[in-house]
Amino acid sequence: MTDLALIAAVSILTAGLTVSFGALGPALGEGRAAAAALAAIAQQPDSASTLSRTLFVSLAMIESTAIYCFVVAMIVLFANPFWDQALQAAQSAAG
Amino acid sequence: MTDLALIAAVSILTAGLTVSFGALGPALGEGRAAAAALAAIAQQPDSASTLSRTLFVSLAMIESTAIYCFVVAMIVLFANPFWDQALQAAQSAAG
Amino acid sequence: MTDLALIAAVSILTAGLTVSFGALGPALGEGRAAAAALAAIAQQPDSASTLSRTLFVSLAMIESTAIYCFVVAMIVLFANPFWDQALQAAQSAAG
Amino acid sequence: MTDLALIAAVSILTAGLTVSFGALGPALGEGRAAAAALAAIAQQPDSASTLSRTLFVSLAMIESTAIYCFVVAMIVLFANPFWDQALQAAQSAAG
Amino acid sequence: MTDLALIAAVSILTAGLTVSFGALGPALGEGRAAAAALAAIAQQPDSASTLSRTLFVSLAMIESTAIYCFVVAMIVLFANPFWDQALQAAQSAAG
Amino acid sequence: MTDLALIAAVSILTAGLTVSFGALGPALGEGRAAAAALAAIAQQPDSASTLSRTLFVSLAMIESTAIYCFVVAMIVLFANPFWDQALQAAQSAAG
Amino acid sequence: MTDLALIAAVSILTAGLTVSFGALGPALGEGRAAAAALAAIAQQPDSASTLSRTLFVSLAMIESTAIYCFVVAMIVLFANPFWDQALQAAQSAAG
Amino acid sequence: MTDLALIAAVSILTAGLTVSFGALGPALGEGRAAAAALAAIAQQPDSASTLSRTLFVSLAMIESTAIYCFVVAMIVLFANPFWDQALQAAQSAAG
Amino acid sequence: MTDLALIAAVSILTAGLTVSFGALGPALGEGRAAAAALAAIAQQPDSASTLSRTLFVSLAMIESTAIYCFVVAMIVLFANPFWDQALQAAQSAAG
Amino acid sequence: MTDLALIAAVSILTAGLTVSFGALGPALGEGRAAAAALAAIAQQPDSASTLSRTLFVSLAMIESTAIYCFVVAMIVLFANPFWDQALQAAQSAAG
Amino acid sequence: MTDLALIAAVSILTAGLTVSFGALGPALGEGRAAAAALAAIAQQPDSASTLSRTLFVSLAMIESTAIYCFVVAMIVLFANPFWDQALQAAQSAAG
Amino acid sequence: MTDLALIAAVSILTAGLTVSFGALGPALGEGRAAAAALAAIAQQPDSASTLSRTLFVSLAMIESTAIYCFVVAMIVLFANPFWDQALQAAQSAAG
Amino acid sequence: MTDLALIAAVSILTAGLTVSFGALGPALGEGRAAAAALAAIAQQPDSASTLSRTLFVSLAMIESTAIYCFVVAMIVLFANPFWDQALQAAQSAAG
Amino acid sequence: MTDLALIAAVSILTAGLTVSFGALGPALGEGRAAAAALAAIAQQPDSASTLSRTLFVSLAMIESTAIYCFVVAMIVLFANPFWDQALQAAQSAAG
Repeated sequence: MTDLALIAAVSILTAGLTVSFGALGPALGEGRAAAAALAAIAQQPDSASTLSRTLFVSLAMIESTAIYCFVVAMIVLFANPFWDQALQAAQSAAG
Repeated sequence: MTDLALIAAVSILTAGLTVSFGALGPALGEGRAAAAALAAIAQQPDSASTLSRTLFVSLAMIESTAIYCFVVAMIVLFANPFWDQALQAAQSAAG
Repeated sequence: MTDLALIAAVSILTAGLTVSFGALGPALGEGRAAAAALAAIAQQPDSASTLSRTLFVSLAMIESTAIYCFVVAMIVLFANPFWDQALQAAQSAAG
Repeated sequence: MTDLALIAAVSILTAGLTVSFGALGPALGEGRAAAAALAAIAQQPDSASTLSRTLFVSLAMIESTAIYCFVVAMIVLFANPFWDQALQAAQSAAG
Repeated sequence: MTDLALIAAVSILTAGLTVSFGALGPALGEGRAAAAALAAIAQQPDSASTLSRTLFVSLAMIESTAIYCFVVAMIVLFANPFWDQALQAAQSAAG
Repeated sequence: MTDLALIAAVSILTAGLTVSFGALGPALGEGRAAAAALAAIAQQPDSASTLSRTLFVSLAMIESTAIYCFVVAMIVLFANPFWDQALQAAQSAAG
Repeated sequence: MTDLALIAAVSILTAGLTVSFGALGPALGEGRAAAAALAAIAQQPDSASTLSRTLFVSLAMIESTAIYCFVVAMIVLFANPFWDQALQAAQSAAG
Repeated sequence: MTDLALIAAVSILTAGLTVSFGALGPALGEGRAAAAALAAIAQQPDSASTLSRTLFVSLAMIESTAIYCFVVAMIVLFANPFWDQALQAAQSAAG
Repeated sequence: MTDLALIAAVSILTAGLTVSFGALGPALGEGRAAAAALAAIAQQPDSASTLSRTLFVSLAMIESTAIYCFVVAMIVLFANPFWDQALQAAQSAAG
Repeated sequence: MTDLALIAAVSILTAGLTVSFGALGPALGEGRAAAAALAAIAQQPDSASTLSRTLFVSLAMIESTAIYCFVVAMIVLFANPFWDQALQAAQSAAG
Repeated sequence: MTDLALIAAVSILTAGLTVSFGALGPALGEGRAAAAALAAIAQQPDSASTLSRTLFVSLAMIESTAIYCFVVAMIVLFANPFWDQALQAAQSAAG
Repeated sequence: MTDLALIAAVSILTAGLTVSFGALGPALGEGRAAAAALAAIAQQPDSASTLSRTLFVSLAMIESTAIYCFVVAMIVLFANPFWDQALQAAQSAAG
Repeated sequence: MTDLALIAAVSILTAGLTVSFGALGPALGEGRAAAAALAAIAQQPDSASTLSRTLFVSLAMIESTAIYCFVVAMIVLFANPFWDQALQAAQSAAG
Repeated sequence: MTDLALIAAVSILTAGLTVSFGALGPALGEGRAAAAALAAIAQQPDSASTLSRTLFVSLAMIESTAIYCFVVAMIVLFANPFWDQALQAAQSAAG
């Protein structure tokens, strides 16, 4: 079962690294965008609605890269095609 | 039981790395957003409620990436599909 | 099945690294662009529509590099030509 | 007992790394938020209560990521499911 | 089939690294250029068309380096001359 | 006694790394907060008491992450559950 | 065929690293130059043509270093003298 | 005596790393706080006593993290529980 | 042919690393110089010709370091004295 | 004598690393504090004595972390408890 | 011929690393100097000749360090005393 | 004589690393202090003597950390207690 | 001849690393000094001769560290005492 | 002669690393000090002599750390006590 263990270990490690490393950029980027929005609202309170809308669109765009990472981590954990294949091969070998 | 030990060791290490590395970006991003909100409230106290609302929405967005990491760490520790599979295999082999 | 396991492990690791590392630059770049747009709208509210349009085009350009990474990760996970080839070889060897 | 020792060593190392690496981001982020709050209070002493409230909410949000790390480290040290499993297996093997 | 597996593993890893690392610089550069364009439009709305044109030309130049990376990753995945050669050699050896 | 030595070596190394790496962030964060407090007092001496109180609360929050690290290091050195378990196992094996 | 596989693996890895690492500097440099051009046009719209011409010459100079990398990657992939030599040697040995 | 030598080597290395790495953050943080205090006294000489008091409290807080490191290094060098245990085991084995 | 393969692999890797790493500094330096030139022309349009001339001389100087790298990469790929020597030795040994 | 040599090598390396790495932070921190003191004296020459006193206290605090490192290095070189123990063990073994 | 191959491989790698790493500092330094010269000419066009002369002398000084690297790379490639010695030894052994 | 050679190699490497790494911080710190002193003298020439005195005291404090490193390097090279011990052991073994 | 080859390989690598790494600091330092000189001449053209003289003395001081590196590289390549010793030993062994 | 070769290789590598790494800090520090001196002279030409004197003293202090490195490198190359010892041992063994 060494092959299965190798794939399992790599999958677990990859899922964790993907979601944790993938949180670095979006968190910093969203922090910068939110900081700019707060400074902008303080400077021009009349445009608060326009600024909020622009901020939310931007946050959504930036969050999308974090969501890519979360999706890939979920795929690796729960719908991993290589693991399914290796499991079938191991079961047919043992069957 | 070497395969089980390998998967267990990788799972423990991954859970810790995921949640600790995943705390870096959100903490810095939230610090920046909060700093901007505090400066903005000091500059425009009349818009404090708008600024607070925008800050909380932004913090929630940024915190979401940290929560992804926490969720993945919990899955790896307590609902690890690879571990369950390996455990069943080991028990059926020993059964 | 060692060859298959090696290719599977490398594919899983590559998919995770690609999408997580590829999220770093775009998230930071989009954060910077969005921050500049919010500051610009606060400074010149009359040009909000021009600024929004320019921002969205820029975000699309920057997001494209993240999408390249996501596409490559999906190819590596679900349409991996090397895996298909190795699988066929393994099946014909076992057939 | 080599498997138990491996899991124990990885658990100890992970607990330490998690809590120490997880302290980096929150400490820096809280330092930035606190610095901004102090500058804001000095600039607008009349809003000190609003600023303090916003600061405390922000510090709580940022601290939460450090607490995730502390919780995971405690789980790894004192409620480690993999260790319990390995211990039972070792005892049943020795029983 | 060890040689084939080595080339396949290296190709998969290279394709992922190329496109993910190659996204870092262009995304940051485009973010900077877009930020400058937005600030410039806010400062000089009358020159918006000139600024937009200059921005798009610059984005195209910067994006070109990301496209080089994407092209090389696609070549490595789908038109890899070394893989074709190794495949032919393996088939003629097995033929 | 190799298992005991491995756990002991890892425990010593972990205790040192935890407390030294965990001192980096809090020290920098507290330095930033203190610097801001000093600048704020110089700018607004009348609010010195409010500023001091805010500073001390913030320092306590930041110091808490360093204390988490110190606590974990002490646990690893003096109340290490894995070491106790390994010691009992070694003594019962030798008994 | 081990020698051929080694050269092939190194060539694939080198091509990817060359073009991806070589995209970092030019993309950042072009981003900076473009940002300066956009700020300059906004400040001095009358000199837009002179500024554009200077920008394009500069972008061409900077892009040249990225093109060096792309050329070397193409040479390594499609006109690799060491691969040709090794292939001839392998064929004459097999002939 | 290999176990003893391993524990001794790790203890020496850990003591040195702990105290040297643990000096980085506090020294930088204290430098920043002291710099702010000096600038604040120059700006507001009348508040020198308040500023000095705040500085000394802050320095004490920051220094505390360095002292944690020094304490752990001393424990590792002179009151190392693992070393004492290993020494007793070695002596009883030799006794 | 192991020696030949080693030299070939090192030569390919060196050529790629040389030209890609050597592109980092010049691209950033040229970007900075070009940015300064654009800002200078915008500030002093009357001196555009002097500024352009100074910029081009500077770009040529900076580009020279990139050209050194390209020349060395070309020498390593196509006029490698060590490869020629090793090839002759291999041919005389086989002759 | 392999154990003795290992402990000696680790001790020498640790002493050097401790004192050299431990010089980085204090030197930078003291440089920053001294720079602030010089700027403060230039701005407010009348408070030179207060500023000098505050500077010297701060330098002493910062220097203390460097002295911790020097003390640990001296202990490791000249009063190393592990070395003394290993030496006695070696002599009694040889006696 | 293993010794010859080792020296050849190290020489090729060293030549590439020397010239590519040695291009980083000079390119950045020249970029900074050129940027300052361009800003200075824009600020004081009357001193353009003095500024140009100073710039060229500075560029020559900075370029000298890049030329040191190029010279060493050329020596390593084409006038390598260790290679000549090893070649003579190999020929006399084979003679 | 393997033990002696190991200790000698580690001692040489440690001496070089200690003094070269230990030069980084003090040189940067002294450069910063000196830069501040020069700016301060230019701003307040009347306080030149006070500023010089403060600068020299600060430089002496910062230089002290570099001197610690130089002292440790000299001890390691010329008064190394571990080397003396190992040499005596080797001579008595050979005597 | 393995010893000779090891010393030759280390010497070549050292010569290249020394001169290329040693070019980084001086090039950046000279670039900064030259940039400051150019800005200073633009600000105070009447002091151009004093500024030039100070610049040249400073450049000579900074260049001296690069020359140390070049001298050591030349010694390692052409007057290496260890190589001469090893060569004599090899010749006397072969004589 | 393996011991001699090891010591020789380490000595050559150490000499190069010491002098090249030791050039980084002083060159940057001297560049900063010289830049400040040039800006100061431009701002206050009447104090040029005082500023020059302070600059030269500072440069001498900073250069001293580079000279420490050069001295250690020279000692390692030409007056290496470990090499002399090993050489005598080798000669007496061969005598």
